[in-house]
Amino acid sequence: MADHLALSDPNCIGLDWGTSSCRAYLLGDQGAIIARNQGPAGLRSINPGRDGDPAAFDRAFEQLCGRWLDTWPGLPVIACGMVGSRRGWVEAPYRELPADLVDPALPCARVRTRRGAELNVIPGLVDLRGLRGVVRGEETQLAGLLGVGLGDGEEDVVLPGTHSKWVRLNGSVVTGFTTFMTGELYELLSRHSILADFIHPVTQPRWTAFDRGVDTAAEAVTDGTGLLGVLFSARSLPLTGAMAETDVADYLSGLVIGTELASARASWVRGTASQLWSLADSGLSARYRRAALRLGWQTVHVLEHAAARGLWRTAHAVGLIGGRASAPSTKHAIAPEEGR
Amino acid sequence: MADHLALSDPNCIGLDWGTSSCRAYLLGDQGAIIARNQGPAGLRSINPGRDGDPAAFDRAFEQLCGRWLDTWPGLPVIACGMVGSRRGWVEAPYRELPADLVDPALPCARVRTRRGAELNVIPGLVDLRGLRGVVRGEETQLAGLLGVGLGDGEEDVVLPGTHSKWVRLNGSVVTGFTTFMTGELYELLSRHSILADFIHPVTQPRWTAFDRGVDTAAEAVTDGTGLLGVLFSARSLPLTGAMAETDVADYLSGLVIGTELASARASWVRGTASQLWSLADSGLSARYRRAALRLGWQTVHVLEHAAARGLWRTAHAVGLIGGRASAPSTKHAIAPEEGR
Repeated sequence: MADHLALSDPNCIGLDWGTSSCRAYLLGDQGAIIARNQGPAGLRSINPGRDGDPAAFDRAFEQLCGRWLDTWPGLPVIACGMVGSRRGWVEAPYRELPADLVDPALPCARVRTRRGAELNVIPGLVDLRGLRGVVRGEETQLAGLLGVGLGDGEEDVVLPGTHSKWVRLNGSVVTGFTTFMTGELYELLSRHSILADFIHPVTQPRWTAFDRGVDTAAEAVTDGTGLLGVLFSARSLPLTGAMAETDVADYLSGLVIGTELASARASWVRGTASQLWSLADSGLSARYRRAALRLGWQTVHVLEHAAARGLWRTAHAVGLIGGRASAPSTKHAIAPEEGR
Repeated sequence: MADHLALSDPNCIGLDWGTSSCRAYLLGDQGAIIARNQGPAGLRSINPGRDGDPAAFDRAFEQLCGRWLDTWPGLPVIACGMVGSRRGWVEAPYRELPADLVDPALPCARVRTRRGAELNVIPGLVDLRGLRGVVRGEETQLAGLLGVGLGDGEEDVVLPGTHSKWVRLNGSVVTGFTTFMTGELYELLSRHSILADFIHPVTQPRWTAFDRGVDTAAEAVTDGTGLLGVLFSARSLPLTGAMAETDVADYLSGLVIGTELASARASWVRGTASQLWSLADSGLSARYRRAALRLGWQTVHVLEHAAARGLWRTAHAVGLIGGRASAPSTKHAIAPEEGR
């Protein structure tokens, strides 16, 4: 856990509190990160039990934010993620689509901590049409994207990860999203499948192998074979001497990421979209950017630390903090007034 | 292990010897099963080591076939499956496509057992084009299909399983095959994924849930979403009250089997094939038949115990046994002279 000195007066505390970790941010003007703390205090490790144990959450909260609140006792606190699920600290019921990410009437759930601070928990989103879909935490990352160059019209955003989300944004309104189980499938295949013997950890991506996977996947999406019909090539190619064993991990990565992108382009993205917004950590963002450029997108904008920005922006939208938020539709990838 | 009394004079012993089990058959005229033995003597459990330990194979062989060979010392012995792999008892190098399943010059690998019997091991097949592919054991199941109603022209055969194979047969010649990792993916998802909590063992298939999965998968193949883009619905539907938790296992089964069949129909099967041959055990064959009829095939022929028949037929083709094999292209699903 790292605790940095504050450099300016903070606006609020933001918590990105998920299943596997909790990230706490001390946020300044426009969501600038003044300090951060991170603990393994995800819902899984603090294990609050089936009905949630408030004391377990409170201990984790004090550990991450106690010193900040000692210094600035009245600071607003806002959180997103699984902490707002039924098994979290306080349930923040899903909002239905279409949902405006900066709606002033956005209904945060509230819980009073032991020391008397009020925790505001941002609700997730649910799509009750078709195959249904839910997000918790992603809506806040999306709010972080507002004001950094999104257009006024319809834009496609991908949030790569265990369960990658593809989101259709219209200005600040989420009109639809869908889920690809890409990251989880890669984990399953590389750890538990017949391919596991061939998956060796590599320090540098083997881009040629990755590209081969992307191209194979894209062709399989086009001709209808699909991922299920090409996965076995990650075994048959090395087995017959047509691929080095050391290439299998990145080839498989290319297969699953390429399938996601080609499928989304075929079925989700409207028309011939030329730009894509990606909210990912640096490891994944390079892979998604590379594959997307290979599959027809002309520009891929990547935004990291979107959750911290989104926590600040949502706190601002619902009136927890004052001040001026940057305009949500400037045409620059990072708006000049936001540079930090 | 069961050992039945022989009812008539046997022609040969056939062994279907794979990774997880070994099935031994005492075979009479036209491949009729006179007796059978089964042991957990698959390559994995007898663990012959990296280079194969002949003694381990010999012990397993004696346990399964010793009494038969005591009674009929000169009986020919033929085997298929992973016993012919590099880590098996004796390596039977792959034959390249196109490959005639009843070619008299088909090169069996041979090894002499401790008691002096000669074990003939049928080679697998390799396709060195495109994404490559290998089979070991399936070629013998396919040989079992000859003479039970296949046409003279091109036919599609599916061998459902962990790694489902789709095979194009032209008479007795294999001209191509491809692999869908359907069974393995179902296992991974139902045992290790986020869906595992919802997978409850059921005694009877819930066909309505299965059909819902098949239809969802087929639509996803058609519109390009693909399996990766609909898998998460096995979580989001029950989570939002749109599916009973007890339906998830069969819905998931329908998703993966439906994806395989719809993908094969879109990309592998030529034209609008109306009949499909399926070589599967009874549990899977009902699912594949049901899904195939739902997705456009008009007739699905199912043949069980294909390996035993194929072992006999291959032994006959290479001259290990004499007698008349039934004509390979009668028009009946089970040729009258083969009724048993």
